[in-house]
Amino acid sequence: MENILSSELINRQWILKNRPIGYPKESDFEIKSVEIPEISNDEILIKTLFMSLDPYMRGRLRDAKSYTKPVQIGEVMTGEIVGRVIRSNYNSIKIGDIVTSHLGWQEWGVTKGYSVSKVQNNNAPISTSLGILGMPGLTAYFGLLKIGNPVPGDNLVVSAASGAVGAVVGQIGKMAGCNVIGIAGSDEKIDYIKNDLEFDFGINYKTENIEKKLSEYCPNGINIYFDNVGGPITDAAIDNIALGGRVIVCGQISQYNDVNQAKGPRNLWTLIRTRSKIQGMLVSDWADEKEEALSRLSSWVSTGKLKYKEDIREGLDNAPKTFIDLMNGNNFGKLLVHVSD
Amino acid sequence: MENILSSELINRQWILKNRPIGYPKESDFEIKSVEIPEISNDEILIKTLFMSLDPYMRGRLRDAKSYTKPVQIGEVMTGEIVGRVIRSNYNSIKIGDIVTSHLGWQEWGVTKGYSVSKVQNNNAPISTSLGILGMPGLTAYFGLLKIGNPVPGDNLVVSAASGAVGAVVGQIGKMAGCNVIGIAGSDEKIDYIKNDLEFDFGINYKTENIEKKLSEYCPNGINIYFDNVGGPITDAAIDNIALGGRVIVCGQISQYNDVNQAKGPRNLWTLIRTRSKIQGMLVSDWADEKEEALSRLSSWVSTGKLKYKEDIREGLDNAPKTFIDLMNGNNFGKLLVHVSD
Repeated sequence: MENILSSELINRQWILKNRPIGYPKESDFEIKSVEIPEISNDEILIKTLFMSLDPYMRGRLRDAKSYTKPVQIGEVMTGEIVGRVIRSNYNSIKIGDIVTSHLGWQEWGVTKGYSVSKVQNNNAPISTSLGILGMPGLTAYFGLLKIGNPVPGDNLVVSAASGAVGAVVGQIGKMAGCNVIGIAGSDEKIDYIKNDLEFDFGINYKTENIEKKLSEYCPNGINIYFDNVGGPITDAAIDNIALGGRVIVCGQISQYNDVNQAKGPRNLWTLIRTRSKIQGMLVSDWADEKEEALSRLSSWVSTGKLKYKEDIREGLDNAPKTFIDLMNGNNFGKLLVHVSD
Repeated sequence: MENILSSELINRQWILKNRPIGYPKESDFEIKSVEIPEISNDEILIKTLFMSLDPYMRGRLRDAKSYTKPVQIGEVMTGEIVGRVIRSNYNSIKIGDIVTSHLGWQEWGVTKGYSVSKVQNNNAPISTSLGILGMPGLTAYFGLLKIGNPVPGDNLVVSAASGAVGAVVGQIGKMAGCNVIGIAGSDEKIDYIKNDLEFDFGINYKTENIEKKLSEYCPNGINIYFDNVGGPITDAAIDNIALGGRVIVCGQISQYNDVNQAKGPRNLWTLIRTRSKIQGMLVSDWADEKEEALSRLSSWVSTGKLKYKEDIREGLDNAPKTFIDLMNGNNFGKLLVHVSD
């Protein structure tokens, strides 16, 4: 093991320096070099290959009630990675295994062997374990199927439609027989969801009147709205909800960088009128069905029924900048940082 | 039949004169005298005994999307009544039967026999067919049990807690083993729900800090919030929602008289954090289970497990004024107008 680490005794990691106010800045993070620690009982040492950047990570920077604890000042920035096991004191994990783990933004990490997930070899690239065959793909799968309950003929609207979650929602919606409308922020993204992913319609929220387009594409109302963004796009969807509509609240990226809580229309009356529901979700709620879901997603990927797009940026140094791009929608597909080979 | 009507050939009715802007005024309605029409095939003539005043009726005055058509200018103001059948051309309805019907604000009405509901003799006063043994009681029953899914130990919060719906929600919640917190607008109402209805806690929203009190009475969060009001009270409830919480949207009276759509906090993030749902309801969604529900409510009323309070005002002339009182919370219990004996 000495030979593996001889030239790499140093681990570089991004530390949270300040809590961002509004949009994060690069200066809110600081890079630090530390020694790679020895591993103890049950621990493994992982070398990061890819880091995942996801909208939920903005919430971890906020010192507020959440479903888990925020990152503290001076701590390594949180996030999921996929990496290779270099040392192991844990029985069922071997050197060379590929695992996903919440190691955060760093080149190396030590963690308990039981806290990681082994990546099965599905003939899919390793990076997909952070995307279509990982948390975002599962989020789309469970949110749509468990809360949305799609049936053929349903009008399904999804926001952030070309993103890691939205693109999967729309494609599974097509498999389920829905009329799928995607909302995204550029003509290039709209072309992609319509032409490559075969959504029925696309709405560019930066240039089109969402409300008008939604009522044009869903004259009988929206049966399912998969919400990745919140804010005015969500208002427009709720205004057009059909009888018995289902709104799946998966993400609220339009709100994450607000300094004060934004205000929106008081639209709960619409829920009475239509007997609709708005329901929040986290992928971990269906942890016990993960294997089954992953096996379906994998088979759909391998047969080409499910397409995906990755936006891979180079080098740990670019992590903060890439994260800021994500907050501004300046990514196209699942956003990853390639850290090492 | 001539003899019954000899001194009463005239029907007085309240007509919608103007669409109210903001809170309704008495001058938005106009009283009119018309002849009582002859009945045709399948029709019956009903003499109104009691008229029901309910918050949803404000929505009928608005020319906007709703679950049913609005009252038009010049039409009789809508509303449910209970009355006695005076003439009948419909097989299964006999003279002397007591029926509920959506005749609106008038002393007499002609309608199809199949459109009314016969009131069963439950030894309960006739007026209860518009309250605890009618639409409001059923609304409470179905909303709480079908969407709220109460289980023993749940914290159940209900707004407009001394009202026709809220009082039933809280009492059924107690039967189901919940810790029940009622919100109302006067100390007298709070005393009533705590001492007479045996709710665990009461919050006077006009004099107490709702948010603080809710977190004091529900340290583990609110499992079920039954929403009759909307607005800031609902914001406070959602802010305190527990993991897997259920918000039943039954009414939004705080919003009904707003001229423009009010704005409130964008709080959907809270649904993600807690995986809660907000769901709208209408009592008619469970029409096929109405008999079973009524039989349970009746037996609870007759054994004293379910208490109720009526606020009965005298005379058709007072209908608009009484309706305005309802909009301002100046009623205490189920609000009715006594029209004739």
